[in-house]
Amino acid sequence: MLLLIIDILGTFAFAISGAEKAVRYRLDWLGLIVLATVTGVGGGVLRDVMLGSTPPVALTNPIYIPICIFGAFIYLKLRLRFRAIRNLILVVDALGLGFFTAVGAAKANALAAGPYSIILFAAITAAGGGMFRDMLVSEIPQVLKSDFYATAALIGGTLFLALDYFDLGDTSKILITTAFTFVLRLYAMRNKLELPKTGKRI
Amino acid sequence: MLLLIIDILGTFAFAISGAEKAVRYRLDWLGLIVLATVTGVGGGVLRDVMLGSTPPVALTNPIYIPICIFGAFIYLKLRLRFRAIRNLILVVDALGLGFFTAVGAAKANALAAGPYSIILFAAITAAGGGMFRDMLVSEIPQVLKSDFYATAALIGGTLFLALDYFDLGDTSKILITTAFTFVLRLYAMRNKLELPKTGKRI
Amino acid sequence: MLLLIIDILGTFAFAISGAEKAVRYRLDWLGLIVLATVTGVGGGVLRDVMLGSTPPVALTNPIYIPICIFGAFIYLKLRLRFRAIRNLILVVDALGLGFFTAVGAAKANALAAGPYSIILFAAITAAGGGMFRDMLVSEIPQVLKSDFYATAALIGGTLFLALDYFDLGDTSKILITTAFTFVLRLYAMRNKLELPKTGKRI
Repeated sequence: MLLLIIDILGTFAFAISGAEKAVRYRLDWLGLIVLATVTGVGGGVLRDVMLGSTPPVALTNPIYIPICIFGAFIYLKLRLRFRAIRNLILVVDALGLGFFTAVGAAKANALAAGPYSIILFAAITAAGGGMFRDMLVSEIPQVLKSDFYATAALIGGTLFLALDYFDLGDTSKILITTAFTFVLRLYAMRNKLELPKTGKRI
Repeated sequence: MLLLIIDILGTFAFAISGAEKAVRYRLDWLGLIVLATVTGVGGGVLRDVMLGSTPPVALTNPIYIPICIFGAFIYLKLRLRFRAIRNLILVVDALGLGFFTAVGAAKANALAAGPYSIILFAAITAAGGGMFRDMLVSEIPQVLKSDFYATAALIGGTLFLALDYFDLGDTSKILITTAFTFVLRLYAMRNKLELPKTGKRI
Repeated sequence: MLLLIIDILGTFAFAISGAEKAVRYRLDWLGLIVLATVTGVGGGVLRDVMLGSTPPVALTNPIYIPICIFGAFIYLKLRLRFRAIRNLILVVDALGLGFFTAVGAAKANALAAGPYSIILFAAITAAGGGMFRDMLVSEIPQVLKSDFYATAALIGGTLFLALDYFDLGDTSKILITTAFTFVLRLYAMRNKLELPKTGKRI
């Protein structure tokens, strides 16, 4: 139940970030819905398609897409107020990041995809939606330029893998990974952690 | 037989719109073929991959890709004449839209993908190819900016779903959905229907 | 054993071309790793996902991604020296092109994907990674603009198909196709072969 609430909140926050971009580019309503939905469920869909777990759960479970559409129009109508609660949205987004990291790792683990893949699918689930969002509006994905977002997911995925050495159920592993990645992302935002850039002049 | 002819005509019209864009960007022959093919079969391929129906029928059935290549070079050689029949091409494109909407819905239905997915895969099949086309040349997909194209497919997919309440065979449902979506798209073009934009200044 | 060495060298050369682009766009370390990895394994992943052979072997076999990451950082640290051996890298890249063409054709063949698909998957495996690389930085893929790269892969894939008429094992067919495509690509580079452009003014 707690997991479901986190899942919904995370999807909602991701959808908001898609809706933001749609409005910035003055897309129409369909573009708004597509960007919100792609950002909200794109990472999970990419994970499921790559793992061969088709059709993707985000499309068959009838809860996710309505959340994304709801998030899109809520944002469209109330976007001035959203600016006021921008920090709250970022916190919920970080919670979503943590949860999707954990769920991606758990699903790759359940499908026996091997240790590398577990870490990778954690990051794909968490950051794939945002990457699609940016590519759809012809931007270089933010996550490739200056980031401690997918990096937090990669570290969270590694933690999930390490938890295998303890005798824990899947739910415990998901909760611990979610909490850890969430806190790591908040810490990174607060301290403006960034990976080094590559393109320094020599 | 009628369905096959519509399928071929639709693929051909989609390929033409890919070839148009390739010429506008002065791509080479390979780019021309790739853009025509991706536009012609991309939506169906994306649908099949997401539904787990692999390898995609557009790649295994040896008719589709030759149609796309044929369309690409016909356009390249005769493009001045194509301008004269531009309206005819748009009508055939709308026919393709209607047909791909119906086929996408029928396939998702056959694979028991759930009501949401049926509507979604109708739109993915119909509009996916054009979206790939635009992304390949680094444009924001037209369908996200001002559209009554994917929207017609979404409405057509909903109709297909509603037809489930009647005792109809798949072929009847496909024909009705194709005809309805086709007419809806023509009506939208004629009356320049568009969805509202999101980015009005507040 | 020879095949494995060629595979590793090819992946390494592809990863270098991804790393080059990451540095040119001044991405951060994650962007560097992602671009190197996507270029190195993206074609094979796309092939496997489209063929339904999931999870993709590039993600489950723990050798490929470390090679890409290694290539990325080697390039970052030594890129001035890489310029000096630029021609060597291009030769290794051509070797990778040849090998991935052969492997893509062989895998599509093994999964009974039909003659068209064999040629197509040869090209997807060989050129898909570079196409993703360019799309991630919002460029029109080089391969669509002026190319004898995917074209070499298409011709190599056709050769692989033709070899079916001889009584050869898979390894022989892979070696012959690799060698042929490799030489074809070198020849094309040396003689600056290009496909005709489409967009001549009329």
